Amino acid sequence: MTYDCFFFRRLKVFASFCRRRVSLPPPAGLMLRLQPLHAASQCAYLYYALLVKNKYTLLSGTRDYNPKQMAIREKVFNIIISCFKRHGAETIDTPVFELKETLTGKYGEDSKLIYDLKDQGGELLSLRYDLTVPFARYLAMNKITNIKRYHIAKVYRRDNPAMTRGRYREFYQCDFDIAGQYDAMIPDAECLKIVYEILNELDLGDFHIKVNDRRILDGMFAVCGVPDEKFRTICSTVDKLDKMAWEDVKKEMVNEKGLSEDVANRIGEYVSMQGGQDLAEQLLQDPKLSQNKQACAGLTDMKLLFSYLELFQVTDKVVFDLSLARGLDYYTGVIYEAILSQTIPAPAEQNGADEAAVSVGSVAGGGRYDGLVGMFDPKGRKVPCVGVSIGIERIFSIMEQKTSSEKVRTTETQVLVASAQKNLLEERLKLTSELWNTGIKAEVLYKKNPKLLSQLQHCEETGIPLVAILGEQELKDGVVKLRNVASREEVRLIVSQIVYNLSCILTKHFD
Amino acid sequence: MTYDCFFFRRLKVFASFCRRRVSLPPPAGLMLRLQPLHAASQCAYLYYALLVKNKYTLLSGTRDYNPKQMAIREKVFNIIISCFKRHGAETIDTPVFELKETLTGKYGEDSKLIYDLKDQGGELLSLRYDLTVPFARYLAMNKITNIKRYHIAKVYRRDNPAMTRGRYREFYQCDFDIAGQYDAMIPDAECLKIVYEILNELDLGDFHIKVNDRRILDGMFAVCGVPDEKFRTICSTVDKLDKMAWEDVKKEMVNEKGLSEDVANRIGEYVSMQGGQDLAEQLLQDPKLSQNKQACAGLTDMKLLFSYLELFQVTDKVVFDLSLARGLDYYTGVIYEAILSQTIPAPAEQNGADEAAVSVGSVAGGGRYDGLVGMFDPKGRKVPCVGVSIGIERIFSIMEQKTSSEKVRTTETQVLVASAQKNLLEERLKLTSELWNTGIKAEVLYKKNPKLLSQLQHCEETGIPLVAILGEQELKDGVVKLRNVASREEVRLIVSQIVYNLSCILTKHFD
Repeated sequence: MTYDCFFFRRLKVFASFCRRRVSLPPPAGLMLRLQPLHAASQCAYLYYALLVKNKYTLLSGTRDYNPKQMAIREKVFNIIISCFKRHGAETIDTPVFELKETLTGKYGEDSKLIYDLKDQGGELLSLRYDLTVPFARYLAMNKITNIKRYHIAKVYRRDNPAMTRGRYREFYQCDFDIAGQYDAMIPDAECLKIVYEILNELDLGDFHIKVNDRRILDGMFAVCGVPDEKFRTICSTVDKLDKMAWEDVKKEMVNEKGLSEDVANRIGEYVSMQGGQDLAEQLLQDPKLSQNKQACAGLTDMKLLFSYLELFQVTDKVVFDLSLARGLDYYTGVIYEAILSQTIPAPAEQNGADEAAVSVGSVAGGGRYDGLVGMFDPKGRKVPCVGVSIGIERIFSIMEQKTSSEKVRTTETQVLVASAQKNLLEERLKLTSELWNTGIKAEVLYKKNPKLLSQLQHCEETGIPLVAILGEQELKDGVVKLRNVASREEVRLIVSQIVYNLSCILTKHFD
Repeated sequence: MTYDCFFFRRLKVFASFCRRRVSLPPPAGLMLRLQPLHAASQCAYLYYALLVKNKYTLLSGTRDYNPKQMAIREKVFNIIISCFKRHGAETIDTPVFELKETLTGKYGEDSKLIYDLKDQGGELLSLRYDLTVPFARYLAMNKITNIKRYHIAKVYRRDNPAMTRGRYREFYQCDFDIAGQYDAMIPDAECLKIVYEILNELDLGDFHIKVNDRRILDGMFAVCGVPDEKFRTICSTVDKLDKMAWEDVKKEMVNEKGLSEDVANRIGEYVSMQGGQDLAEQLLQDPKLSQNKQACAGLTDMKLLFSYLELFQVTDKVVFDLSLARGLDYYTGVIYEAILSQTIPAPAEQNGADEAAVSVGSVAGGGRYDGLVGMFDPKGRKVPCVGVSIGIERIFSIMEQKTSSEKVRTTETQVLVASAQKNLLEERLKLTSELWNTGIKAEVLYKKNPKLLSQLQHCEETGIPLVAILGEQELKDGVVKLRNVASREEVRLIVSQIVYNLSCILTKHFD
C-alpha cells in the first residue's frame, strides 16, 4: 500500500509533465523510476492513457461555451446590440488575422502579447489584438471619413491566464466607435451615454464612470516638471493607481522612473482630485495648469462634455478623475473607464488568500484617438475617432454567477410531439413536420417507441411548455391531446385544426 | 515617354514583388535597375509609397465585411438560426484554436491546409479547420452522449484563394448536428429536412439534394473488384464526378489509381444510377450487391430514410445518387449534398474564359460519422453523430449579387432629431436622449448648427423614415413637427407627449 501511494504521487508529477508538453514522450528517467514499482505493461497502459487524455484538452486560457453559457451570452449580446442599434450604428467585420505589419507599433509594450501565425510561406500574419486597430486599418483602406459602427468579435492575447483574474487568451470585445470630423465632445458624450445605458440594462449593480483627458494629463505632467520624454511612462505608472496605493505609485515614479520627490508630490496633489464640471472650472483657474495650452484645451472640453452629459441625464454616475490614465498609447483626448462597485469571488483556479474576493474592476473603457487612422493612410490623412469597448468576459462571469443556481433554458422549443402508445412514429413525425412548416418550434424523440414518461421528462428537463400527445383512440376520434407540462391541464384539439389552434395558444400564453 | 512606359512596366513587377513579400526590402538588383531611369529621390518615394500602401492591405483570401454585406449576412444568419431553433437545437462555441494534436489525423490529405500558430513557447496550436472535429472533441471531453446543437463560426484553411472559386481562407460554417444513440435514420432524416427548409426560405431558386451511403459505396467497390486498400482513394476519384466527365474519372481510376478497365466499367454502371426509394429496392435485388452485407445494410437504411422523408414531404428534392462520394474520411453511413441549379457569373478576379459562368455547386453537405468522437475518448467510447454544414459563403455571394443594385438599409434608426434653425443643439440632444431612454432608435447629427437640408439628406441616404424637426416658434408653442421623409407629410406633436405619440406612430406604420 505504501508502495502504491508513493507510486501515485510520482505519477501525478509525471501526469502534469505530460499535460504541459503533450507532444514530448516522458523522459527516460521518469519511465525507469516508474517501472520497477509495477509491471511494465501497466505502466505502458497508464502512459498511453495519459497521452490520449491530453489529446482532448484545451489550451489554458481558452474555453468552450456550453449551451447554458451560450444562452447567457446571447442575452448579454442582445442587450448590447440593441443599444448600439438604438444609437444608429452599422456593423462591420474584419478577418481574425491581419498582416503582422498592421499590428506592429500600435500597442507599445503589449506587442509581446500578440499571437503570430507560423510562417508557412506567404505573408506574415498575426491574430488581432483588439478591434480598434483593424477598424482604423479598415477606414484608411476604404477611405472612409465618417461612420458610426459597432463590431463584436473575438480578440487574442498571449497573456498568462493564471496570472490574471478572469482574463482569457481568447475573448470577446464589443466595440462602438464614431469616426468623423464633428463638433467637439458631442460623439464623446454619446459614447458615455451608451456605457451608461448598457450597464443599467445589464443590471449589474452600482457603477461609476471615470473620465479624464490625455491633454489634461500631459499638461499636468508638464507643469509638475516631468520631462517630455517621460510623459508616456509616467502615464503608465499613474494608470496603476486603481490597483496600488499612492505611496507605491510614488515609489515607482521616484525609484524606477527617476522623478524627483518634489515632482512626484506635485503629481500626487493633482491625481487625488475628483469632481464634475465644477472641478474642470476650478482647474481652469489653477495658476499653473491654466498656463498650459494643452491642459486648458482639455479642461474646456471637459466642461463642454459635462454640459452634454447633463442633457443626457447621466452625470450621476460620471466622475472627472485626474488619476485615470489608461494604458494604450493611441489616445489623444478624452478617456474613460466604467467600474462596477460589486466584488466577485475569485475564480476557482486562484487560491491566493488575498484574492478571495476581487473587485470586478473595469468593465468598459475607451477614449478619443485622432491619430490612429492617419498611421495607415499613405498621405497620413487623419480621421478623428472616439469609441468605447465593453469588457464582455467579466460581464459574462457575473451573469453566470447570478444564474448559477437558476435553470436557464437552452432551447426555444414550444411543443414536444409525443405518443402514449407504441407504433405511432409515423404519426409523430408527420405532425412534427407540419408544425415546423408553420414555424412552430417543435421536437420529437428519435425513438420508434419512447415511453410517455421519458417524453414528459424530456419536456421538464429542457423546459418545453407544451406536449402534444398522440394516442390510437384519439387519432380514431380525430383529436390530439395537448398538455400544459407545468399545470398538467389538458385540452383536446381537432387534428385538422391543430396547427391553427396551437399557434393561437402559443401566441396567447407563451409569448 | 517610352522611357516612362518601360519604367512603369518594371515598376509593376516590383510592386507585385513587394505585395507578395511586404516584410522584405526589394532586392538590390531591382533597385539598381530602377534608379538609373529616374532620380533616386523619386524612386525612394515610390518605394516608400508602395510599402506604406502594403501596410494596410489584407491577406488575400480574407475580406472585410462592410455594413451592407453585414446587413445581408445578418438576414441569412437569422433565417438559418431560426430554422435550427425551430428544430430544438442548442448552441455551443469552441475556441478558434485547438491543440495541434486535436486536428492531426482527422482530415487526410487536407491536413496540409491547416494554419499553425508560431511556436512562441507553450503548446503547439492550430486554427480550426472545421466545426465537426472541435464538436467531437467537445463531446468526448465533457462526456456528452447526446445533444442536438448548432454552431456558427469561422474556420480557416490555407487554400489558394486564386485557384478556387468563391473560396476564402477564412469563412463561416453553419453546422447542425445530432449526437446520440437513436433509432435508425430518424435524426438523419431531420438533417435533410433542415437543409430543405433553409434552402427554401433563402429563396435561392431550384435545388436538389443528393443522398448516398458510405456502406453502399464500399459494398459497390467490393463487388466491382476494387481491392480493400483502394476504397478511400477510389472514393475520392468518384467524388470528382460532379466536376468531371465519366471518361476522365475512369482514366484517373485506370491510369493513376491502377484499376483494371473491367473494374472501372463495373463501377461506371453503378455510379450512373439515380432514383429514389425504388432504386434502393431494386439494388437490394441486385444479384451482386445483395450478396454484400455492408451494401445491404446501407440500402435497407436508404429505404427507411426515404420513408421518413416522405412523411416530411421533402422527397421532391431528394435524389439517391450512387455517384455521390464526399471527400472527408470520417463519414461512416449516409452522406448528402445540396446543389443549387442556378449558375453565377465568375468572380471578377477570375478571368479564364471557361469560368465565365460557374455552377454554384454544393451549398450544404454532411453525413453520419459514428467513429469520430471515439477517436477523442480515452476508452474509445463511440457517440453516433449525424450532421449538416451550410456553405454560407456561397449563399452570401448569391444574396449579394441579388441585392447589388438594391439599396439595403444598414442601420435601424427610426427617427432623426433635427432642427430648422441655429442654436438648438441642446434641445436636439435632450429630445434624442429621451427617445433613447424609451427604446426608440434615434440619431442626431454631431454638429452645432447643421443645415436642415443636410439633415434631411442624411435621412434619405440611410433610409431613416421619420424626422422630428425642432424650431424656435414650435418650441414656444410647445410642439414638434414630425415629418415622414418619403411622403413629406407632417404632423405636429405636443412636446410633452412626443415620446408616447412617436411610439404609437412607429408601431402603427413602420413595424
